[in-house]
Amino acid sequence: MASDHQLLSQTATQILIPLCTAIGIAFSLLQWRIVSRVKVSPPTTNNRNGYNNLLINEEEEEEDGIDEDSILLKCAEIQTAISEGATSFLFTEYKYAGVFMMAFAILIFLFLGSVKGFSTKTQTCTYDGQKMCKPALATAIFSTVSFLLGAVTSLLSGFLGMKIATYANARTTLEARKGVGKAFIVAFRSGAVMGFLLAANGLLVLYITINLFKLYYGDDWEGLFEAITGYGLGGSSMALFGRVGGGIYTKAADVGADLVGKVERNIPEDDPRNPAVIADNVGDNVGDIAGMGSDLFGSYAESSCAALVVASISSFGINHDFTAMCYPLLISSVGIVVCLITTLFATDFIEIKAVKEIEPALKNQLIISTVLMTLGIALVSFIALPSSFTIFNFGSQKVVKNWQLFLCVAVGLWAGLIIGFVTEYYTSNAYSPVQDVADSCRTGAATNVIFGLALGYKSVIIPIFAIAVSIFVSFSFAAMYGIAMAALGMLSTISTGLAIDAYGPISDNAGGIAEMAGMSYKIRERTDALDAAGNTTAAIGKGFAIGSAALVSLALFGAFVSRASITVVDVLTPKVFIGLIVGAMLPYWFSAMTMKSVGSAALKMVEEVRRQFNTIPGLIEGTAKPDYATCVKISTDASIKEMIPPGALVMLTPLIVGTFFGVETLSGLLAGALVSGVQVAISASNTGGAWDNAKKYIEAGASIHARSLGPKGSDSHKAAVIGDTIGDPLKDTSGPSINILIKLMAVESLVFAPFFATHGGLLFKIFR
Amino acid sequence: MASDHQLLSQTATQILIPLCTAIGIAFSLLQWRIVSRVKVSPPTTNNRNGYNNLLINEEEEEEDGIDEDSILLKCAEIQTAISEGATSFLFTEYKYAGVFMMAFAILIFLFLGSVKGFSTKTQTCTYDGQKMCKPALATAIFSTVSFLLGAVTSLLSGFLGMKIATYANARTTLEARKGVGKAFIVAFRSGAVMGFLLAANGLLVLYITINLFKLYYGDDWEGLFEAITGYGLGGSSMALFGRVGGGIYTKAADVGADLVGKVERNIPEDDPRNPAVIADNVGDNVGDIAGMGSDLFGSYAESSCAALVVASISSFGINHDFTAMCYPLLISSVGIVVCLITTLFATDFIEIKAVKEIEPALKNQLIISTVLMTLGIALVSFIALPSSFTIFNFGSQKVVKNWQLFLCVAVGLWAGLIIGFVTEYYTSNAYSPVQDVADSCRTGAATNVIFGLALGYKSVIIPIFAIAVSIFVSFSFAAMYGIAMAALGMLSTISTGLAIDAYGPISDNAGGIAEMAGMSYKIRERTDALDAAGNTTAAIGKGFAIGSAALVSLALFGAFVSRASITVVDVLTPKVFIGLIVGAMLPYWFSAMTMKSVGSAALKMVEEVRRQFNTIPGLIEGTAKPDYATCVKISTDASIKEMIPPGALVMLTPLIVGTFFGVETLSGLLAGALVSGVQVAISASNTGGAWDNAKKYIEAGASIHARSLGPKGSDSHKAAVIGDTIGDPLKDTSGPSINILIKLMAVESLVFAPFFATHGGLLFKIFR
Repeated sequence: MASDHQLLSQTATQILIPLCTAIGIAFSLLQWRIVSRVKVSPPTTNNRNGYNNLLINEEEEEEDGIDEDSILLKCAEIQTAISEGATSFLFTEYKYAGVFMMAFAILIFLFLGSVKGFSTKTQTCTYDGQKMCKPALATAIFSTVSFLLGAVTSLLSGFLGMKIATYANARTTLEARKGVGKAFIVAFRSGAVMGFLLAANGLLVLYITINLFKLYYGDDWEGLFEAITGYGLGGSSMALFGRVGGGIYTKAADVGADLVGKVERNIPEDDPRNPAVIADNVGDNVGDIAGMGSDLFGSYAESSCAALVVASISSFGINHDFTAMCYPLLISSVGIVVCLITTLFATDFIEIKAVKEIEPALKNQLIISTVLMTLGIALVSFIALPSSFTIFNFGSQKVVKNWQLFLCVAVGLWAGLIIGFVTEYYTSNAYSPVQDVADSCRTGAATNVIFGLALGYKSVIIPIFAIAVSIFVSFSFAAMYGIAMAALGMLSTISTGLAIDAYGPISDNAGGIAEMAGMSYKIRERTDALDAAGNTTAAIGKGFAIGSAALVSLALFGAFVSRASITVVDVLTPKVFIGLIVGAMLPYWFSAMTMKSVGSAALKMVEEVRRQFNTIPGLIEGTAKPDYATCVKISTDASIKEMIPPGALVMLTPLIVGTFFGVETLSGLLAGALVSGVQVAISASNTGGAWDNAKKYIEAGASIHARSLGPKGSDSHKAAVIGDTIGDPLKDTSGPSINILIKLMAVESLVFAPFFATHGGLLFKIFR
Repeated sequence: MASDHQLLSQTATQILIPLCTAIGIAFSLLQWRIVSRVKVSPPTTNNRNGYNNLLINEEEEEEDGIDEDSILLKCAEIQTAISEGATSFLFTEYKYAGVFMMAFAILIFLFLGSVKGFSTKTQTCTYDGQKMCKPALATAIFSTVSFLLGAVTSLLSGFLGMKIATYANARTTLEARKGVGKAFIVAFRSGAVMGFLLAANGLLVLYITINLFKLYYGDDWEGLFEAITGYGLGGSSMALFGRVGGGIYTKAADVGADLVGKVERNIPEDDPRNPAVIADNVGDNVGDIAGMGSDLFGSYAESSCAALVVASISSFGINHDFTAMCYPLLISSVGIVVCLITTLFATDFIEIKAVKEIEPALKNQLIISTVLMTLGIALVSFIALPSSFTIFNFGSQKVVKNWQLFLCVAVGLWAGLIIGFVTEYYTSNAYSPVQDVADSCRTGAATNVIFGLALGYKSVIIPIFAIAVSIFVSFSFAAMYGIAMAALGMLSTISTGLAIDAYGPISDNAGGIAEMAGMSYKIRERTDALDAAGNTTAAIGKGFAIGSAALVSLALFGAFVSRASITVVDVLTPKVFIGLIVGAMLPYWFSAMTMKSVGSAALKMVEEVRRQFNTIPGLIEGTAKPDYATCVKISTDASIKEMIPPGALVMLTPLIVGTFFGVETLSGLLAGALVSGVQVAISASNTGGAWDNAKKYIEAGASIHARSLGPKGSDSHKAAVIGDTIGDPLKDTSGPSINILIKLMAVESLVFAPFFATHGGLLFKIFR
């Protein structure tokens, strides 16, 4: 339990963390303010703002005689429709999430309270038998509170992200009239608002919660950080609604709109005559903004909690070294500052002028943030940590040096970058894998699907090696604390990651608005270019999300095992092995459910769209307006209803297995689900991304090869469209939802560990 | 080490085993003889045989004025072409397999010989330190010999299976003229020839090898059965050629023939004008007969070896109880007799008269054999085993009762039946899952693929639970010996399993011959009905193969762990965990390779078929004959070449991981590959099977629902054809090949265990 004096004092830590979160929030509000300068409502007085003056200069080459005010009006109208649809979805979702939250909060309280029969007496600590700790009932109460706080913070982050996204989409469209660079900046700044708000809020609430809980727990850090794990569970369980519910929503609307609009009625994508077009645009925000945000927020909250709970029973916690204890929070704090500097490179230091500069600019964001963050991690590691300390390692204490912990965090960070680049290589149509898939469309849809599936399978190889190396390094150096810190390392640049990720759906929406508002081909071309880059960053974001989910799950698994007082998870025991093989099956069961959910929800949408085309006279001729709101409502209701079976699978499995089969089988199950789920998730995401971009490759026709496959409507293009449609639920619903499956089962096991360790394994107890 | 006297004496055992194998071989030769009564070559004298006399009675309703002798001639000609193509493939394959066998035999000798530096001195035994065992060099030599014997037996079984299959296909076609029942019997009897020959040969060679090796080893049973494991490796490594090479062959020919013939030239399947049509028919035999046979032979040899090696260090081996030691062989012996009785139910006790009786008859085979075998297992367990004995359990000895071991074998047997029925439910178009997939073709190929993938994912749930229960029961009762015996239990009805499995491709070929020989629509309808039932049995066979592969791999894994002197495989160590996650990735890497191999090989075929259509005048008009032989050669060469990368992945991974990372990482890798691979294999096989039968459902149009989707050529049918083509490589190449991946890596690790345990983990040794 070596501990020498570190440079950063407790007071400095207490100032630094809230300061960084304040900077993050201030920066994000500033970005919002800059975005808001673009006016969407048409000027009612003759006091035209500067933006419109600018526009006048370019007017001639722009809107070919289309009345400008009417375009502004249309854009405003569409934006309002999307925004209202998104808000209506969120509020419906929150209603159900609220009921779920309350029910689950009661469950947590009952399960954890029952560990010591709701006794209010203090007890000897679990790991330090010589000290007295707060009663188990306190842990039950505070876990419940932190669960609720985590859930509310997650919902808030999703809501704010969605607000800014639906606020920015029409603004991006309007800025596209001035040029691709201007539009890029608006979309990117809006993404940054989401990124910084989420990271800073998440950290701030966690930090305040710890400090408030400390008022009660005092020196009982073991109990304190046990109770804090509820925060991770709260964040992650809301991600179930965001990712799974949102994933079903977005693809039900998308597939439903396409099947009737594109296939049956032969009208283009984003055509305003399609009744599901607003629902489709809402879906982009619901799935990719709120869903991705809640997923990454969950990962972030969980890895912080996993690190803290392990640290609390290591020398940091035993010696009550507050600065070292806050190491995970300090890393995240520095991450906010690093991302702030990184953002300036895209928004202020360099100006985008041409389409081809967009993708490199976004990729540079990843590289810059990773390089700077490496320095940041080094700094924090050397000023906040003692040069040598011990970490709890399944029953024993392991001596760790501060440079080793630096390596743990850094390896996670760089593994994230590698996963990002490999994902880009396999999903961007600038490289041969996607081009080969596009080429296979020559011989039809079947070969396209075969090549796409093979590409997805192949794309898991390097990410798995990257994850394996991070696990090996961080595990060897600092056991499960190392894994949790590697996960936090990967997530330390979350603000930048979310900014470039949210940029995608905003651009996608901007394109949709341009089409619906009847803007010129030129504008649409610019928004398409933004969108194409966004497709690749979306795939990168998914790669990050699954990579971090893998590390987070392992860290949570480690924390669960520690808390359930297991020292060995031996594959050579029947209890563990059956857990392992059944766990490896769960991602398949779960995917079957989510894919079926998308199918059922899409079918309902198809019926409604068909009904409107058949019953509203003049709709197909463009003289009557469709009923967008009903489609939004159908998507909303269907997605909430359809997420119940997969949600139940995730939430009930750990409870049933833990209660009836005990902690060994549950350990096996978690490990099995983790190692198998990662593969399914990566391959599904990348296959879908590749098909999407193979189609875009043929449509864009940017090379001789691409033109030989096109144009739109050719047989090859038709084959590519089939692949794209198959990929939709894979890449946006079933694939990313697996992150939630593996993380949520792990964090739930962690929170309920004391109960399972005491009362679990009923079935084996009966038969013994 | 309790051991009381059992009923069956050593002498009785020594008689019983060879007797049963002799019965099996005799029965199979009898079936062959019965099949040979159907004459394919036209009678050259006026001494027309009884068959032709029979035919005369039905002549009028039969061949609508087509000259009978010319049909016989055509059938004979086509059969010869298929048979020659198959033989030419096999000989080419054997040439490469021979080189591989020799090289690998040398490798085995060098690796195992080097364990004790090629010393010829006797050594103390590994598990019984007080006794002296034969030198490690002897184990090296005898392992090499048994490896070669296993390999040769596997090749021989595949060759004989293929011979009877290509002998029976035209005979089935000709018998179809007399009625569906007659044709069924011919196809089924021929399948039985393959089933019984393989099971009896495999057992006999193993039995003789044990007895011959015993002449040298004497009382050193530890060394004896260590050396015997080479037999499993030999059988399994040839299955790599059969399954992977054969899988690539069959789909390259099939996809290549379809892409040019059906899609580009718009000629029907099995049209004699298609140059790849013979290669396609050869492929059915190569992939489904020789491939499946070598796969199941490998499983059978491996599970026997795994059981024997564990038994040799348990009380059976320590007490030199020969009868108990032979328990696995006795189970297989009784299995042959049970299957013989079962076969009589299909061929003699009951006569098939109508199409709808075929599928129930095949399903009854499974049920009858399982029920009878349960009695057989009970019998063997109570007469061949002491009532109580001990089994080696990772370092300690575990007391086991004979009724517990009965349960281990029985649970495996019944799990196989459950897997079979679940597979049937998900792949037969008599049930709602496939009908739903067919229905989804209404909205196009994309929904068909999405629903098909979801079906495949869903179909893993019950088989995994069945496997998990078998593992739990057998593992809990008798550790790894129990698992090996559960695997042998599942494989105990292998003769019947292979008979109904081989029946499928024979019927498929019969249909192809009917089409090519220009026989009437009626005949073709009958062979189609036989083929449809064969499709389902093929899927059931694949379910069996993967289920047994899972149990076998686990048993081999357990034997490897025992032999490498590992007592714990702890997931909570970095070395094991990285093995686990990388292992779980391997099935994806492997599938990506095999799918790409099919693609590349099919592309070569497409080019050749196009070339022939373009350069041979009169080919498309049917006035000139295509060059079948070149297509056969292309498929042969491409499949051999394309199997090198996936083959290298399987063969090199254990060697590299064991040598550089050591036995702990290798253990994790094997466990990860096993739990992840099972899911990939089951879902791929069932998805492909479902698509195939969804297409057939629409084509057959047997219900109002089915007719609403058809007829052939409708949009729904086109969508179904796309699904079928995608499913081809999934169900016939990449899915089943995973069996080989997980089994072969495990058995290779087992054989090389002494080397890895002594010299392995180089990388960690350097860094330590």
